[in-house]
Amino acid sequence: MNGSIIDSPAWQKLSLLARQPYDLTKPGALSADNRLASFTATSAGLRLLFATQRVDGQVLAALQHLADEQNLIGRLREMKAGAVINRIVGWPSENRQVLHTSTRDIFTDKPAEPESASRARRELNKLEQFVQDVDSGRLHGAGGKPFRTMINVGIGGSDLGPRAVHEALQAFYREGRQVRFIANVDPDDAARVLASCDLEETLVTIVSKSGSTLETLTNEALVRAAFERAGLDSSRHFLAVTGIGSPMEDPQRYLRSFSMFDSIGGRYSTTSMVGGVSLGFALGMDQLLAFLRGAAAMDAAAEEPDMYRNLPLLLALLGIWNRNFLGYPTLAILPYSQALHRFPAHLQQCDMESNGKAITTDGEPVNVATGPIVWGEPGTNGQHAFYQLLHQGTDIVPVEFIGFLQSQHQQDLLVAGTTSQQKLLANLLAQAVALACGRANDNPNQRFAGNRPSSILVGERLDPYAMGSLLSLYEAKIVFQGFVWRINSFDQEGVQLGKILATDLLELMQGVDRTVPSELSQFLRELER
Amino acid sequence: MNGSIIDSPAWQKLSLLARQPYDLTKPGALSADNRLASFTATSAGLRLLFATQRVDGQVLAALQHLADEQNLIGRLREMKAGAVINRIVGWPSENRQVLHTSTRDIFTDKPAEPESASRARRELNKLEQFVQDVDSGRLHGAGGKPFRTMINVGIGGSDLGPRAVHEALQAFYREGRQVRFIANVDPDDAARVLASCDLEETLVTIVSKSGSTLETLTNEALVRAAFERAGLDSSRHFLAVTGIGSPMEDPQRYLRSFSMFDSIGGRYSTTSMVGGVSLGFALGMDQLLAFLRGAAAMDAAAEEPDMYRNLPLLLALLGIWNRNFLGYPTLAILPYSQALHRFPAHLQQCDMESNGKAITTDGEPVNVATGPIVWGEPGTNGQHAFYQLLHQGTDIVPVEFIGFLQSQHQQDLLVAGTTSQQKLLANLLAQAVALACGRANDNPNQRFAGNRPSSILVGERLDPYAMGSLLSLYEAKIVFQGFVWRINSFDQEGVQLGKILATDLLELMQGVDRTVPSELSQFLRELER
Repeated sequence: MNGSIIDSPAWQKLSLLARQPYDLTKPGALSADNRLASFTATSAGLRLLFATQRVDGQVLAALQHLADEQNLIGRLREMKAGAVINRIVGWPSENRQVLHTSTRDIFTDKPAEPESASRARRELNKLEQFVQDVDSGRLHGAGGKPFRTMINVGIGGSDLGPRAVHEALQAFYREGRQVRFIANVDPDDAARVLASCDLEETLVTIVSKSGSTLETLTNEALVRAAFERAGLDSSRHFLAVTGIGSPMEDPQRYLRSFSMFDSIGGRYSTTSMVGGVSLGFALGMDQLLAFLRGAAAMDAAAEEPDMYRNLPLLLALLGIWNRNFLGYPTLAILPYSQALHRFPAHLQQCDMESNGKAITTDGEPVNVATGPIVWGEPGTNGQHAFYQLLHQGTDIVPVEFIGFLQSQHQQDLLVAGTTSQQKLLANLLAQAVALACGRANDNPNQRFAGNRPSSILVGERLDPYAMGSLLSLYEAKIVFQGFVWRINSFDQEGVQLGKILATDLLELMQGVDRTVPSELSQFLRELER
Repeated sequence: MNGSIIDSPAWQKLSLLARQPYDLTKPGALSADNRLASFTATSAGLRLLFATQRVDGQVLAALQHLADEQNLIGRLREMKAGAVINRIVGWPSENRQVLHTSTRDIFTDKPAEPESASRARRELNKLEQFVQDVDSGRLHGAGGKPFRTMINVGIGGSDLGPRAVHEALQAFYREGRQVRFIANVDPDDAARVLASCDLEETLVTIVSKSGSTLETLTNEALVRAAFERAGLDSSRHFLAVTGIGSPMEDPQRYLRSFSMFDSIGGRYSTTSMVGGVSLGFALGMDQLLAFLRGAAAMDAAAEEPDMYRNLPLLLALLGIWNRNFLGYPTLAILPYSQALHRFPAHLQQCDMESNGKAITTDGEPVNVATGPIVWGEPGTNGQHAFYQLLHQGTDIVPVEFIGFLQSQHQQDLLVAGTTSQQKLLANLLAQAVALACGRANDNPNQRFAGNRPSSILVGERLDPYAMGSLLSLYEAKIVFQGFVWRINSFDQEGVQLGKILATDLLELMQGVDRTVPSELSQFLRELER
C-alpha cells in the first residue's frame, strides 16, 4: 500500500462533500426523493434503514467509490482464502492468517480456505460426540449426576462474545441447561458464580488459547479447589479449549479437549469452539448449526461488491463517513431487545481492540482517526437514562439501533391498545426521527437541534440464525474499516505494557529481589496506605 | 449569574496553563516533588490518587480558584437547604427544589432541610415496619408462603441505580433473599424474569413517580397477568413506590405504598424509597442504614471548601480540566471489582442525563462543552477487550479507576505466589502507570505514547457504607460540574420529543384517526416491510 488514504480521489471527494452534509432538519427531509424506501439494504435476513444518516446520493456514490478504489472486497476475499494479513511490514509481528470466517465455512463443497474449514468441521464433530455423550448420560459428574450446568472460564474474547450470544439466545436453551461465566481475576467473581452452582452436575470449560492467561489459570485453580472441597474429581468435570501445543493439552486434567488455532483471534472466536462448546451444550447441535449458518450467510453477503447488497460494507462506510468526515469520536450501539443487553460490550471489545490503532500496516503513524469509542445499552431503558445527552448534549453521537419485529418469548399483552412489542418498535423509530429531524421551540430548553445521525438494523426475530448473521455483520464491518484505515485489525500490542508492569508489581508484592521501577513501589505504598 | 464562565479569571488562567499540561512521560515524572504522596486526598473512607492526571501545582491552584470564584460550595449548601435550583430563569420549567441529599440527612439533629429530612425518616419508619412484617411472617404470599423474592419494576432512575447497588452488595444479602429487575418494555425482559421466580413467594415493587410511566405500567400489567394465571391475588403481592397524588396511590391494588417526592429526581433517587424498599428487603435495615450513613458522610465532605478534603469537588474539577481544557469528550469509569459491574451504567445515566445539556440556567446557549460521554466495564476484563484503544488509539480517553484493598467474599487462593486480590490491584496500578508514562520502543507497533490521564479511587472493602459513599461522591461530582457549566443538571427535557413521536406512532399502529406526520407512517411501513 503506497501513500496515504487521504490522497485517494474518493477520500478527497468525501472531504469536499462533508462541508455540506445532508440537512435532516429541512421540512420533508426524510421523505424527499423516496429516501425512506431507497436508503435501505438487506443481507442475510437483516435490513438496514439509513435514511436518518447525513448522507445523500453523492455521498453514497463516493463511499462506494472508496470501497472499489481501496479494493475492500478483494482484500476480504484474500483474507478468507488465507492471506497472512495479521502483520506489520518490516517489523516483528504476529504474521498470521485471519481465518475466523472458516469456522462457519462448512456448508459448502468449496470453502475459501479448505484446510482451516476442515479443522473447523473436525472440531464440530468432536463437539457433536461430546454433546451426545452428555445427553445420553454416558458422560456424567463424578458423583453420578447428569450434567446440567456449564461454567465458562475465560476472559476477553473467550468471555464477551460467548456471553453476549448466550444472553441473546437463552430463550432457545434446552430444558434444564444453564451456562455461567467467570472472567475477572477479582476473586468475588468466581465466589459468586460458584455459590450458585451444584458442582456435582457442573461442567467447567477452561478457555485460553495460550494456556497461560493469568486470570483464567487463576480462576481455574479457584474452581478446581471448590471441586476438591466438595470431594469431586475435577478432571471428570473440566474441559479444555486451547491452542495446539499449549500446556493445557493434558488428558489427565481434562475430560475432553477442543482446539483453537492461531489464525483466529480471541475477539473473532465466538463461532469457533470458544463459543461452540457452551452453545452446543446449552442449545444443542441443531441450533448451534443454525447460528453458524446465519454467520455464513452474512459472510457470503460481505463479498458482494455493491454496498446495497452488502450490509457489512454499507455499515462500515457509513461509519467512516461519521468518524472521518463528520468528525464524531464515538458510536452508540443501542439494541431494542433486552436479550442483546451484552452485545454492545462484545462489539466494544471487537471494534476497539481491532481498530484502536495508530500505526499503519507499514509501521507508519496513521494520519486519520481510526476506531471510535463504542458503547451502548438497551433501549427503551436508555431513553430514561443517557438519551438526554444524545438529544441535547454539546457533542453528537452517531447511533446504530438494532430491533426485531417479533419478540422471542411471544408472551405479550395489549396495554392501552398496543402490545409491548409495538411499544418497543414505536420507541425505536421515534428516537431515530427525533435525533434526525429535531424540533423548533420558543423555549430554548425544549429545542432539539436535530441532525444527529443514526441507522436502524432490523430483523424478523432474534433466533440463532439472526444472531449469527448479526455477529458476522459486525465482524466484517470492523475488518472493512481497518482496511480503509490501513491498520492491522488483528493484533493487540496495546495490551502488553500493562501486563509487563503488572508482572513487576506482582514480583514486588512477593518480595522477589529484582529491580522494579521505584515509582511502581512508591505508588503501591500509596495505594495500600 | 452574569456573563460567561470563559470570562472568569480562573477559567482564563486554566486556558493558559492548558497550553503546556504536565508531561507524565518525562523520566521521573511520577515521583518528582513527592507527587505520588501529595496528589492524594481522602473523604468518607475513599481515597483518590491523582498523580497520573496531567496536572501540576499551578493547575490545581487554578482549579481550586475556579471552585472558590464560582462559589461551588455555597451553591451546594443552598441546594441542600432547599433552594429552587431545578429551573431555567424566564422560561417554564420544573421549578423544584433538589433534595436527594436529605434522604440520608437523618443522622443529625440539624438537617439542612428539616421538612424533607423528616419525610425521609417517616418513609424509613414505614419501611422498617414493612421489613419486620415480612421477616416475622405477618406478611406472606396469597398462598401462605413467606416472601423470599422481590421483583423491582421501574425504568431509568427507578432501575439503574438500585440495580447497580444490588449487584454491588449481593455479598451482604440476607439468607434466602433475592431481588430481580424488570425495566425494558421489551416483553422478553419480563418473560425471562417471571420464568425464574416462584410467584407464591414473590413481592413486586412498582416504582414510578408519576404513576404513568409507559414501560412500568405495561410491565406491571404483564406481571399482574402472570399472578392471575397462577391463581394469586396480586394485590397481596404488589407494593407501590410513587409520588403523592399519583394514580398508583391505591390501597386496593397495593399491599403497602411508599412515597417519592418532586424534589428528588429519578437518577438521584437510589437512597430514597426507590432503592430503599428492595435494599431493606434484601439487606435488612441495619445494612440499609450503613449504606445511607456512607452517603451522608460523603455529603458532609462535599461541603468542605478545600478540595483536598472534598473528593467530589476534586473529582469534578479534574473532570473539568480534562473535558474543557484538554478537550477530551468521553470518560471511562473502570471498576476493578466485579460487583460494581453495573455501576458505570448508573453513572452513565446520572451524569449524561444531568449534564448532557446545551443551554444555561438563563436559557442561553452554552459556549463550553458540557457533560462527557460516560462509559465503562470492569477490569481486569476490559484489559482483554477495549484497553487496546485506551493505550494506542488515536483518541485519548480519561479514566477513573475504582478499586478496593479487600475482596468481599474473602474466598481467595495463592496462585503463582500471589492472591487474586493482589493480581487485581497490581493490574489496576499497572494500567494507570502504563497509560500515564507510556514507553518508547523501536518497533512502532510496540510504542506507547503515554500522557493518557487517569485517577484511582480506592477503598478498604466494598461494603454498604463504602457503596453509599461512592454513590454520593459521584452525585455531588455531577452537581458541581453542572454548577461550573451553569446548566440545570436536574431536568431532562431532551427525552420529551422521542416520547411525543412514540405516542404518534402508537396511535398510528392502532389506526386512531388523527394526523400523524406522513414521514412517520412511511418509516413505519419501511420498518415492517
